[in-house]
Amino acid sequence: MGGSIIGERFVALSFGESHGRCVGIAVDGCPAGLPLNESDIQGLLDLRKPGHSVVTTQRKEEDKVEILSGVFNGFTTGAPICMLIWNRDSDSRSYDLIKNIPRPGHSDYPALVKYGGFADYRGSGRFSGRLTATLVMAGAVAGKLLKSTLDIETVAYTSEIGGIKANNITKDNIATRYTNDVRCPDPEAAQKMKDAILAARKDGDSLGGVIECVSTGLPVGLGEPIFGSLESDLSKALFSIPAVKAVEFGSGFAGSKRRGSENNDLYYLKDGKVMTRTNNSGGILGGLSNGMPLVIRVGFKPAASIAKTQETLDLSKNSQAHLQVPGRHDPCVVPRAPPVVECAVSMVLADHAMRAGLIPAVLK
Amino acid sequence: MGGSIIGERFVALSFGESHGRCVGIAVDGCPAGLPLNESDIQGLLDLRKPGHSVVTTQRKEEDKVEILSGVFNGFTTGAPICMLIWNRDSDSRSYDLIKNIPRPGHSDYPALVKYGGFADYRGSGRFSGRLTATLVMAGAVAGKLLKSTLDIETVAYTSEIGGIKANNITKDNIATRYTNDVRCPDPEAAQKMKDAILAARKDGDSLGGVIECVSTGLPVGLGEPIFGSLESDLSKALFSIPAVKAVEFGSGFAGSKRRGSENNDLYYLKDGKVMTRTNNSGGILGGLSNGMPLVIRVGFKPAASIAKTQETLDLSKNSQAHLQVPGRHDPCVVPRAPPVVECAVSMVLADHAMRAGLIPAVLK
Amino acid sequence: MGGSIIGERFVALSFGESHGRCVGIAVDGCPAGLPLNESDIQGLLDLRKPGHSVVTTQRKEEDKVEILSGVFNGFTTGAPICMLIWNRDSDSRSYDLIKNIPRPGHSDYPALVKYGGFADYRGSGRFSGRLTATLVMAGAVAGKLLKSTLDIETVAYTSEIGGIKANNITKDNIATRYTNDVRCPDPEAAQKMKDAILAARKDGDSLGGVIECVSTGLPVGLGEPIFGSLESDLSKALFSIPAVKAVEFGSGFAGSKRRGSENNDLYYLKDGKVMTRTNNSGGILGGLSNGMPLVIRVGFKPAASIAKTQETLDLSKNSQAHLQVPGRHDPCVVPRAPPVVECAVSMVLADHAMRAGLIPAVLK
Amino acid sequence: MGGSIIGERFVALSFGESHGRCVGIAVDGCPAGLPLNESDIQGLLDLRKPGHSVVTTQRKEEDKVEILSGVFNGFTTGAPICMLIWNRDSDSRSYDLIKNIPRPGHSDYPALVKYGGFADYRGSGRFSGRLTATLVMAGAVAGKLLKSTLDIETVAYTSEIGGIKANNITKDNIATRYTNDVRCPDPEAAQKMKDAILAARKDGDSLGGVIECVSTGLPVGLGEPIFGSLESDLSKALFSIPAVKAVEFGSGFAGSKRRGSENNDLYYLKDGKVMTRTNNSGGILGGLSNGMPLVIRVGFKPAASIAKTQETLDLSKNSQAHLQVPGRHDPCVVPRAPPVVECAVSMVLADHAMRAGLIPAVLK
Repeated sequence: MGGSIIGERFVALSFGESHGRCVGIAVDGCPAGLPLNESDIQGLLDLRKPGHSVVTTQRKEEDKVEILSGVFNGFTTGAPICMLIWNRDSDSRSYDLIKNIPRPGHSDYPALVKYGGFADYRGSGRFSGRLTATLVMAGAVAGKLLKSTLDIETVAYTSEIGGIKANNITKDNIATRYTNDVRCPDPEAAQKMKDAILAARKDGDSLGGVIECVSTGLPVGLGEPIFGSLESDLSKALFSIPAVKAVEFGSGFAGSKRRGSENNDLYYLKDGKVMTRTNNSGGILGGLSNGMPLVIRVGFKPAASIAKTQETLDLSKNSQAHLQVPGRHDPCVVPRAPPVVECAVSMVLADHAMRAGLIPAVLK
Repeated sequence: MGGSIIGERFVALSFGESHGRCVGIAVDGCPAGLPLNESDIQGLLDLRKPGHSVVTTQRKEEDKVEILSGVFNGFTTGAPICMLIWNRDSDSRSYDLIKNIPRPGHSDYPALVKYGGFADYRGSGRFSGRLTATLVMAGAVAGKLLKSTLDIETVAYTSEIGGIKANNITKDNIATRYTNDVRCPDPEAAQKMKDAILAARKDGDSLGGVIECVSTGLPVGLGEPIFGSLESDLSKALFSIPAVKAVEFGSGFAGSKRRGSENNDLYYLKDGKVMTRTNNSGGILGGLSNGMPLVIRVGFKPAASIAKTQETLDLSKNSQAHLQVPGRHDPCVVPRAPPVVECAVSMVLADHAMRAGLIPAVLK
Repeated sequence: MGGSIIGERFVALSFGESHGRCVGIAVDGCPAGLPLNESDIQGLLDLRKPGHSVVTTQRKEEDKVEILSGVFNGFTTGAPICMLIWNRDSDSRSYDLIKNIPRPGHSDYPALVKYGGFADYRGSGRFSGRLTATLVMAGAVAGKLLKSTLDIETVAYTSEIGGIKANNITKDNIATRYTNDVRCPDPEAAQKMKDAILAARKDGDSLGGVIECVSTGLPVGLGEPIFGSLESDLSKALFSIPAVKAVEFGSGFAGSKRRGSENNDLYYLKDGKVMTRTNNSGGILGGLSNGMPLVIRVGFKPAASIAKTQETLDLSKNSQAHLQVPGRHDPCVVPRAPPVVECAVSMVLADHAMRAGLIPAVLK
Repeated sequence: MGGSIIGERFVALSFGESHGRCVGIAVDGCPAGLPLNESDIQGLLDLRKPGHSVVTTQRKEEDKVEILSGVFNGFTTGAPICMLIWNRDSDSRSYDLIKNIPRPGHSDYPALVKYGGFADYRGSGRFSGRLTATLVMAGAVAGKLLKSTLDIETVAYTSEIGGIKANNITKDNIATRYTNDVRCPDPEAAQKMKDAILAARKDGDSLGGVIECVSTGLPVGLGEPIFGSLESDLSKALFSIPAVKAVEFGSGFAGSKRRGSENNDLYYLKDGKVMTRTNNSGGILGGLSNGMPLVIRVGFKPAASIAKTQETLDLSKNSQAHLQVPGRHDPCVVPRAPPVVECAVSMVLADHAMRAGLIPAVLK
């Protein structure tokens, strides 16, 4: 396959380019009988789209989803669900100027080599963060499927931006994560993060950060070791999100510094249910879900497109060049990432729940 | 698939259990004409096997590879290469005792639920670290293929154990990484790591750590965005290694704290070749290799099997229990992990080089 | 996967329903640099669409292809190529009447059971012959890719309808196959076939037939035994065409009646090229192309939708029923099938040529 | 993948060569809890192996299966089941003589080109009919799984050899198919077939034939249109059997000569169950099982290896040559094919039953 397909039973093929006609995704394998319409998807898309606050790019994108197939009379049919967003007219002129001047930190240079100059470079084409909208569309379907059948829920939120960390994350304040601009449940940290983003933007610069994601309600035993371990397939999906450079489960790198007696999660029974006193495993043991909440941390690099002048090359002249990336860009992509991470995780969990035979082919 | 298969063009199916008859792997898709015999594989297996020093388990395993198919007259034929190691008689009695008493931090509990009690639990069965020998066998073939055709080389080494970090990593001392017990290129840190492991073992405890992996010689453009990004497929393979809980590329989580102007790698020309002044991207931009060294950090949790008494459950009685894990175990798996990481990475790079059409179907 | 995806390197996902918003297909893996626009596809679609003559259904379908992604400045980019045809308003009322009355010979009954009543039954939904337009779109791209890179050409024509067989098939008259209504190169047989179709229609009945397909220019060695034999993958694609119930290669079933000395193809050299004196193998030995023309025969059953009254069931009442299938239907689908067979074969050959590394990732 | 893998949920990777160390297959995805031991597999292997009668080659092959993994305490564990047969010392000398002299009708020539001379040519290597033993091993597991869970049974028998057709096939005499040398339920035809084979052998020649296969007990709705139609996946598996050149379902090519009113199967109720009065569809409508028996006919070409002198080439000299294929060969492979066809069909049905969620991940 050419890299645009993911999944074994809940399978998705992403298509489209940032400044092409549309961005879309076709989902094959979704069971019949799931109630579904555009509004189930639009809500998550709206949380992803730019322009919602001062911390994101001021470009306006309407991002209105259309379902082209696979839904009939308000229910999924079992046939592929093709969904897309039509792109509005974009101003692509600035991209012509930098066609041969690769932006540092961007896909420009390797993409130019790989596709021999044929790739659609406008707005970063296939490599644009805009393509995460396709993950959101597929993941919204997956999330509804998981909620309807197994009562699995996934929430993601900003836990760090520019080195500023959230504290006091609680179930309650997670529920309010979309009420502030940076999508951080800790309001105090949220304010500092926002200030930091605005300061970076003022400097023509950008910031990175970390998204934390928690899924609850997983049955015990999702995952197919060795190569289909839950961590394997989750990380594969998460590293498909542009700018993601690090993924850890549970105590992750911090656990690498510990002793086994500190990191092992001890078992106990709670109302007859097997639980662990801590959750350093992040809900995964041996590549299998263990019934505890799935906990993932996803590291995003600072956005590569910055207004500051940077050293680069003019490949058409084979010479050194300097570049101020033109256009309006996100000073920090992290505030737009929570729905993307939620949806990427939902896609993988839906796939594994189907692989485990836990979701019937027809929902009643 | 049942989770035991990885790859699209260089494909591997891992089989076997820790205390079953054998552990093995069948590789489908390796080109014809690669010189190959058991000694190409045995060297890497020997670096993985336990008993080589005081910091590993004192169990002795011979781990002698046999090639069952796919090689004729000293060359690969283009047919599947099945390789295996026969297990020697193991003492599995201790595992009967803990059949219903899940070891904290281990796969025992979710595996029991998932496979309904039918899984081979002896020596952790399919979830044993012993299965990493199958990755090594397949990866040794991949590594030789990459070296022969594209001059790609992959080296992994211990960069941190129990919080002790290596410094002064150089190309020269990486070459000596297998000369000390912990496989750390920095001899001073290596000694401290060894002491820490011995101290942990004395306490009936274990340590985690971090492996760093560097691949050089990659052509520009390996990787298939979106879902087949190089980070996606590398992380999928790396999270298939038991005890791995974190993976980052280039500046990874540290990059998440930076500004774009600090993290972007600036371009320059060196002898006509496009290079970057820093390598915070870890050699991957937009999911594609950019020609710079591939740099990955892999976090291992401390080994779950420890001699210390731990709280757990007796699932046969549905009651609380205490457990001292019996048997001889690794106080730290990290020193045995570098060949495993090297081989997992080689498998993925071979697959992507084939997907990109860079390796011919017949080698001349 | 849910069954709507085919291929390993040249991969296609078909979506859409007969009376839904559209029918479409997304192709992942097509190399960059292939000149492509809608007109490359429209020609083959026009040959498939109904209404071109008295022997097909009189329904009018415009079947105008739109390329949504993967093409930029007139060339493929290496990104997925999503193509679709918007459906025009269809009269679906008659399908409500037969929702619970399965048409004999149709997918109605098993589809109703499989999808629990959620499938879009209008116009046979996902099971409609209309979905073959999606194969044509993907196959048109594959065919152009094969012609441009390896000079492979595929032609299919009607060789039998209602038991009337074509004779005197020559390279010359094959070239004229699309000039008569039944797409049979033998003009005398073509007239008889046409008469037979009109007679069947007059009786409220339908006819079956056989399509023959020949591909030339194949390099020696396409195919991946065992399970990826060329016959395996070609038959998989061909049996995806509705109404196909039989596939044979070369002498096929007739060869089963022969002795080895009659059926073996003897080798000779022609201008230094290895040739066989006969081609009973149909160009495939051991699952591999042998350089001789690929010859396939594909058997289509008579169209199931007929005006004659037939015995069936009313599943809503669990009782016997009688049915005259309403609407306008093809009295014989065979005359519309040659472009579909050509395109299905091209898709498989493109996939195998890519798997064999014979088509570069970027065309110059 | 390299062509040696089949299936999506019940997946098999075949390895080994005719005169290598072994032939084997690894099955990934078989549910846990299926009682399984070597004797479940050996019975079908014994029916396939040569030397059982005067109509097969007189080579003796013991073909004793060993299970290497995936079974514990007499039950499958959910882990991959690797099975193999060790090859006994074979006399491969005669193959050196014909290394550059391709046998007409064999894979020799395209395999030489494809694998650049590196393939193991001894005993036809990877292309040997001996590899069908690997299908039998995997299919025996699949067959037991289907019988245990869904009560699906598959029987195959010889229906034609050298143009001699069986008549009077009944459920009763099918049960006796393995009691005569040619595996034909009709004893009168069986005798004529046997005589014809012996006559062909006397002439240094060979015969082809047809296997018919019937599966009963299929639930309604197996199959995943479009590309995963039941016919698609069954034909893919069947064309993986060496010498198969034709496959048809139900009335197949004969149906292509009929009118719709003759070929459509009319519905009726029998004890409340939906049945069809005829079964021209062979139990498949729209690519889905319809609950009627699955009926497949598989055409085998006459064995290519014959004692008669044939015209060919000496590729080392680039000159015409003559060849009498040395060694002892099957004058007709058809009598050995019924268990192979049964097993190929079982593999596909098990895969589709799992894809449809009809077989649980753990059998109780």
